[in-house]
Amino acid sequence: MNLLLVEAREINPVGRVHVHDARARHLIHVLHVEPEQVIRVGIVDGPVGTGRVVHVGHGAVDLDCLFETQVPARPPVDLLLALPRPKVLQRLWAQVAALGVGRVMLCNAARVERNYFDTHVLSEAVYRPLLLEGLQQARDTHVPVVSVHRQFRVLVEDALEDMSPGSRRIVADPSGAIPLGRAAVEATGRVLLAVGPEGGWNRFELDLLARHGFVCGGLGGRTLRSDTACIAMLAVVHEALRGRRQ
Amino acid sequence: MNLLLVEAREINPVGRVHVHDARARHLIHVLHVEPEQVIRVGIVDGPVGTGRVVHVGHGAVDLDCLFETQVPARPPVDLLLALPRPKVLQRLWAQVAALGVGRVMLCNAARVERNYFDTHVLSEAVYRPLLLEGLQQARDTHVPVVSVHRQFRVLVEDALEDMSPGSRRIVADPSGAIPLGRAAVEATGRVLLAVGPEGGWNRFELDLLARHGFVCGGLGGRTLRSDTACIAMLAVVHEALRGRRQ
Repeated sequence: MNLLLVEAREINPVGRVHVHDARARHLIHVLHVEPEQVIRVGIVDGPVGTGRVVHVGHGAVDLDCLFETQVPARPPVDLLLALPRPKVLQRLWAQVAALGVGRVMLCNAARVERNYFDTHVLSEAVYRPLLLEGLQQARDTHVPVVSVHRQFRVLVEDALEDMSPGSRRIVADPSGAIPLGRAAVEATGRVLLAVGPEGGWNRFELDLLARHGFVCGGLGGRTLRSDTACIAMLAVVHEALRGRRQ
Repeated sequence: MNLLLVEAREINPVGRVHVHDARARHLIHVLHVEPEQVIRVGIVDGPVGTGRVVHVGHGAVDLDCLFETQVPARPPVDLLLALPRPKVLQRLWAQVAALGVGRVMLCNAARVERNYFDTHVLSEAVYRPLLLEGLQQARDTHVPVVSVHRQFRVLVEDALEDMSPGSRRIVADPSGAIPLGRAAVEATGRVLLAVGPEGGWNRFELDLLARHGFVCGGLGGRTLRSDTACIAMLAVVHEALRGRRQ
């Protein structure tokens, strides 16, 4: 944990926060915080700041917090991800949040098994703590907005423009003629990255994405497992966007 | 499995291969191969080619194989990795092989727990099948050369130049002033990427690496878990090197 995330409602009017759950256990038993120590804190979907430890005891920590006035920018990348196997998705939540995404749209595809939609890994009670874990690792406060779409075509044709307006749209595919980094660096605003299921998108899906403005971007000839691909591609897109800003 | 890997000794003088282990089970029960079907095959550390299925039965598959004369190039990146937790390393083997590395040097560091060196995940019997799994996914034949180094200083001072001669050396660090992709694109030959433990390299280690030619390259301000960092950094370095070749 490189940043302690707290909800806005946990902060009292004079900036005092009392944590007494898994975060407190981590502060006490892993980080060994002591009174007067100052740690990084952040408000979920809000600004970052500092927290001075005022009391440690009975499995709880009290901090006096001061927050910056400006909220950091939301990560400039959104992810449209064909629903992976539950075990893979479980592992991905924290990593995706740590790498930085504004939105995660989980969708159906021909090569997604139907029973993947019944998993508990899709319930907010399961994924939200994992997203927060990733944010606390990467020192971000923006919880990715998660949505689940059982109808791929409806998502692409009707919902996408509202959910990720004006984005540079890139579909990751081993056949991608354009190197992924080059495809991303041409974005003037946000990037929307579509990552397919194990076995890839089928022809219908690739055509539908192409008709809706997605260009094909690739990582070279190697075919990656969908979780590895997801991390690799987010990293390359972020690196390209950083290069653009410099 | 996107490529069936076989050992050179498994091929008889007329190019016939008989597989009857987990690979055969995958060919039969997942890929549902049938006689006359042609699949991609590769020789471990050798060329790729095609295999025509001649017989399927009793949990075994026979193929007639034809191999190209040229062996594909070894991935141009080597990895010096502070030994991660066994559970994390177990997950990393296949992913690192899929992304492509020539060598993996696992080393000690101040923030590596000593008992990590006692894990079975460091035995070749455990990691070799995982490396082959990653290669079969990515259609590569080059098994990364793995070595374990309990003395970080001895490795950096004495062994590194022989193991990765003439490489562009980059140490991944959140403080990295140079974006990682830019640091890699300046390589004229191979890249050697050093990825630290959870909690990072300490000052002594960073200084030692700097004195031995490592430049500090970063992925921006986000601190990543070491397995996420490893995948993200390999992806960005490969993308930079691909850009260089085009």
